[in-house]
Amino acid sequence: MAIRNIQLTIAYDGSGYHGWQIQPGRKTIQGVLGEAIRSLTGCEIQVTGASRTDAGVSALGQVGVMQIDSPIPTTNIAKAITDRLPDDIAVTEAVEAAQGFDVIGSVKSKLYRYTIFTGTVRPVLKIKHCWHLGRKTDITAMNKGAKRLIGKKDFKSFASAADKRETSVRTIFDCEAKAEDDWLYIDVEGDGFLYNMVRNIVGTLVEIGLGRLEPEKVKKILEAKDRTAAGPIAPPQGLCLMWIKY
Amino acid sequence: MAIRNIQLTIAYDGSGYHGWQIQPGRKTIQGVLGEAIRSLTGCEIQVTGASRTDAGVSALGQVGVMQIDSPIPTTNIAKAITDRLPDDIAVTEAVEAAQGFDVIGSVKSKLYRYTIFTGTVRPVLKIKHCWHLGRKTDITAMNKGAKRLIGKKDFKSFASAADKRETSVRTIFDCEAKAEDDWLYIDVEGDGFLYNMVRNIVGTLVEIGLGRLEPEKVKKILEAKDRTAAGPIAPPQGLCLMWIKY
Repeated sequence: MAIRNIQLTIAYDGSGYHGWQIQPGRKTIQGVLGEAIRSLTGCEIQVTGASRTDAGVSALGQVGVMQIDSPIPTTNIAKAITDRLPDDIAVTEAVEAAQGFDVIGSVKSKLYRYTIFTGTVRPVLKIKHCWHLGRKTDITAMNKGAKRLIGKKDFKSFASAADKRETSVRTIFDCEAKAEDDWLYIDVEGDGFLYNMVRNIVGTLVEIGLGRLEPEKVKKILEAKDRTAAGPIAPPQGLCLMWIKY
Repeated sequence: MAIRNIQLTIAYDGSGYHGWQIQPGRKTIQGVLGEAIRSLTGCEIQVTGASRTDAGVSALGQVGVMQIDSPIPTTNIAKAITDRLPDDIAVTEAVEAAQGFDVIGSVKSKLYRYTIFTGTVRPVLKIKHCWHLGRKTDITAMNKGAKRLIGKKDFKSFASAADKRETSVRTIFDCEAKAEDDWLYIDVEGDGFLYNMVRNIVGTLVEIGLGRLEPEKVKKILEAKDRTAAGPIAPPQGLCLMWIKY
């Protein structure tokens, strides 16, 4: 039987996990997913993920790829794996991918959504999936700042020092803050992101929204190519990987 | 200083707790709340709750009362306790109550909401607060059955055998199922509920919604005064105590 390349769409509540990437002795999404696949196929199969989401970060549309030589029909894979997963992870779709499909290198676009609660009363039922800021922000100012991030730019100032990738140039297609009642959403779409880049962007936009930073300063922050020029990092639990396009 | 009676409104995500009531060696809402109050006032103070919610059940409007002789101003109490609580519990309001206020006996009305997800794809970010039924139900039939529960009736058939209260007569003011996209909400308002009564009502209405039980049978179930006449109990995590009126 030929080995098949299967592309999975994966959703998870990251609040109980040490991030995507497998680590010895720690509960991670990739690790738990691997156990479910082993229980289904009897084989040690690792799913390669498109994004290494951090501890506490959730996803509705993470994408992964795995190679299997099991006879299970592709249409049954998503449900069969999900049945073997804890209830805070699900494989929402499984499709046959081309041989040699590069789940990281072929990404065209990704959307991250960051959720902030601006009301004062702690939102207990959603607290694991938002940043409880507890006060209102100036959305117009935030969007003035956000607009300056759009385009192909060097985002070194928004990358954590731990990022060791060759180039810090990325393209942001869209970046926008929207308010709905006491909720504030910041959507960032790009062709790729440096380590902690979205959370550093959110932290900077919140500084602008609270009047501590001028929206015009974003240009200077980008030019500095220095992490300390940008705002503080936003906490992980507000972040969710919404989708990835190929 | 006079001892004051303070009425608290309490919200919590019950998914990580063994219910409201304090139990030795187990994490409960009442226990954790008592620790926060001790850390604030230095005194062992127990909050008496209006409803003993079960393990896994959440609340947005639980009501409790406590007696304190601390000089802390009433307007500061909610925030001061909440600051000492884990992030899945909050005291959302604190007001002075009359001496002798009976937090259980004076209840006029309570609303419980039960949340069901009828879509097929596991809703990972809300899975701790819903019953993932995974298929559509006949809402019209469910509401036909629900209507038959409204009024002052003997709800013995909907009480778990563990309920040892004197009378099983209660008044349901309203009971209604509403659908929004893949979500189904069942709201039950009454002057009081027997042990597991709302979950037994929900389990029965879902049997009706799935076509396994005729809505007209609700009358017979009530007349039977026998728990085995009604449908199975719905799982706890879909249940939320929304508010209590005095």
